[in-house]
Amino acid sequence: MAPNPASSDRPTIALTMGDPAGVGPEICLLALANAELNQACRLVVFGDIRILERCAQKLQRPYPVKHWSVDEWQSAGRHSAESGIVHLPILDEATFVPATCDANTGRASFAYIEAAIEAAQRGEIAGVATGPISKEALHLAGIEFPGHTEIFAERTNAAKWCMMQFAPELVCTFATVHIGYADVPKQLTSERVLDVIRLTDAAMRRLKSRNPTIVVCGLNPHAGENGLFGNREEEHLVVPAIEAARAEGLNIVGPLPADTAFIPQRRQTTDAFVCLYHDQGHIPIKALAFDSAVNTTLGLPIVRTSVDHGTACDIAWQGIARPDSLFAAIRLAARLSRRQDENGANP
Amino acid sequence: MAPNPASSDRPTIALTMGDPAGVGPEICLLALANAELNQACRLVVFGDIRILERCAQKLQRPYPVKHWSVDEWQSAGRHSAESGIVHLPILDEATFVPATCDANTGRASFAYIEAAIEAAQRGEIAGVATGPISKEALHLAGIEFPGHTEIFAERTNAAKWCMMQFAPELVCTFATVHIGYADVPKQLTSERVLDVIRLTDAAMRRLKSRNPTIVVCGLNPHAGENGLFGNREEEHLVVPAIEAARAEGLNIVGPLPADTAFIPQRRQTTDAFVCLYHDQGHIPIKALAFDSAVNTTLGLPIVRTSVDHGTACDIAWQGIARPDSLFAAIRLAARLSRRQDENGANP
Repeated sequence: MAPNPASSDRPTIALTMGDPAGVGPEICLLALANAELNQACRLVVFGDIRILERCAQKLQRPYPVKHWSVDEWQSAGRHSAESGIVHLPILDEATFVPATCDANTGRASFAYIEAAIEAAQRGEIAGVATGPISKEALHLAGIEFPGHTEIFAERTNAAKWCMMQFAPELVCTFATVHIGYADVPKQLTSERVLDVIRLTDAAMRRLKSRNPTIVVCGLNPHAGENGLFGNREEEHLVVPAIEAARAEGLNIVGPLPADTAFIPQRRQTTDAFVCLYHDQGHIPIKALAFDSAVNTTLGLPIVRTSVDHGTACDIAWQGIARPDSLFAAIRLAARLSRRQDENGANP
Repeated sequence: MAPNPASSDRPTIALTMGDPAGVGPEICLLALANAELNQACRLVVFGDIRILERCAQKLQRPYPVKHWSVDEWQSAGRHSAESGIVHLPILDEATFVPATCDANTGRASFAYIEAAIEAAQRGEIAGVATGPISKEALHLAGIEFPGHTEIFAERTNAAKWCMMQFAPELVCTFATVHIGYADVPKQLTSERVLDVIRLTDAAMRRLKSRNPTIVVCGLNPHAGENGLFGNREEEHLVVPAIEAARAEGLNIVGPLPADTAFIPQRRQTTDAFVCLYHDQGHIPIKALAFDSAVNTTLGLPIVRTSVDHGTACDIAWQGIARPDSLFAAIRLAARLSRRQDENGANP
């Protein structure tokens, strides 16, 4: 019987290389060479050995020789305990220019993600930590996804999912993410807010092993101040979701004004914040936890975390990119994988 | 000839007592007794001696005996160098209950503000620092203003003004403030954004004595990401304002995604952030500078700063309210008053 990587002591975490032109390759090399990470999990980069080797040579970094083709991975590699690389020779190396994201690099970065998702669905890996991609490069390649989250949700047919930004300083989940400012009040429903509250509660319960305290933010200034500002979105959309969640025994605070929600005293007593739109949660996350936040998707059948920064082509392939966010993503993926294994399916 | 308080070494700063039921009286007492503040300015509380004395007795704090009626203030008090109280006996003391804001306290708190504005307009004081009021109490008293800023703007017939939140950690100004979330894209114009950029530049130029660097935030996630999210509000509303400001020689960065605008590295190189809506700037201000932010209104003919917290009735009249925000408001009012005097009229 094939060993189940999720149940081994050291979970196997797939690491997608991200856009080859960005900082993905160099930070993947740093992850593969990092002793602490390799103790927490077995790392398998889904990427391109030609790019990783070239990047390692340019930056004079150690290059890990262990690699497999997709066939080799499926037959033997998946059963190995070694960290290494699943080689996906998608990129046209002849036209590749480091630090220049284009259709070629966008297509390749998407293929790494697809391969990792398929491996996770076949049970070959316990979770995926994704390297930075360029949405513009995806677009140039004709691939229309606003981000990783949506790719994972579609490929795994997830019905109810949400983004979580996880940092030691604070944890935020999102009822809407990559839509325009003006579309938020049109797309929000109290059903959606309730789903996100439930997903948030389930995830924090697993991570903290206790009944978590969850703050739900309002939409308007001062959370509407009893109808003074806005169209009573708090009363119509947020309060019914909070009441339903409380009826299920969840520990919910709110709706709170978004500006006072994130003050230090409140953060100390809050396990996670449910945010109604992208910047409501991303402003405090990036202001307070720029280097440590991990993006993860709740509600998927597979564990998935991500770096919280872009391809950073302006500093790519120079050896100066910091791997902190990727390392944090790998650590959280390993933590979520273990918990998933101990406590049953992902929420 | 009557001395001009704005041109003396120590500017006269009016301090409105705020809602009598809130923390205003006790923090005003702390300000009056504070040696450092009294060195920076002459402090004149516009409030009620009955309330201040009662509060001082309850909390066993020193009570400053110097006080004037409005008539006494206008004839003699204004020429004195002593700190003290202008007594406005508006409150019905018989029905007053500490820590309970109502129509009675709302009416009184509004009268203190009116009196201070009138004194400033007569040139008797160099600036006003306002104590915390209850919008609900104002509303109960039939006074329909969303906040201090709007009261000052209306009473001084200011044509172009904006809110500034000033803290050592970051400075934000606002193109819209107390309107519903959904109204923001409808009310924003590039003329308004340009006005706020100019007001911000003029204020920071005075405060920092150099050409300031100003970041303007976008409206949509990732500042729209080239039209991917939203209705190109960045291109239609923000970019024209930025281009016009640059043509005037101003040093403008943006439109930047609001989440990455406030990261530590960016804050270090930015003098002020122009925000498009209330929570865009209030989230980072309160998350990063909860106790130190000062609310001030740019574009008024008189200097006006404010505490950055509410009446806090849950802890009022107990002697535990922290005066830090009021002290910071007084310091900034004194600083802006001096600068105004040195460099000419307020922007």
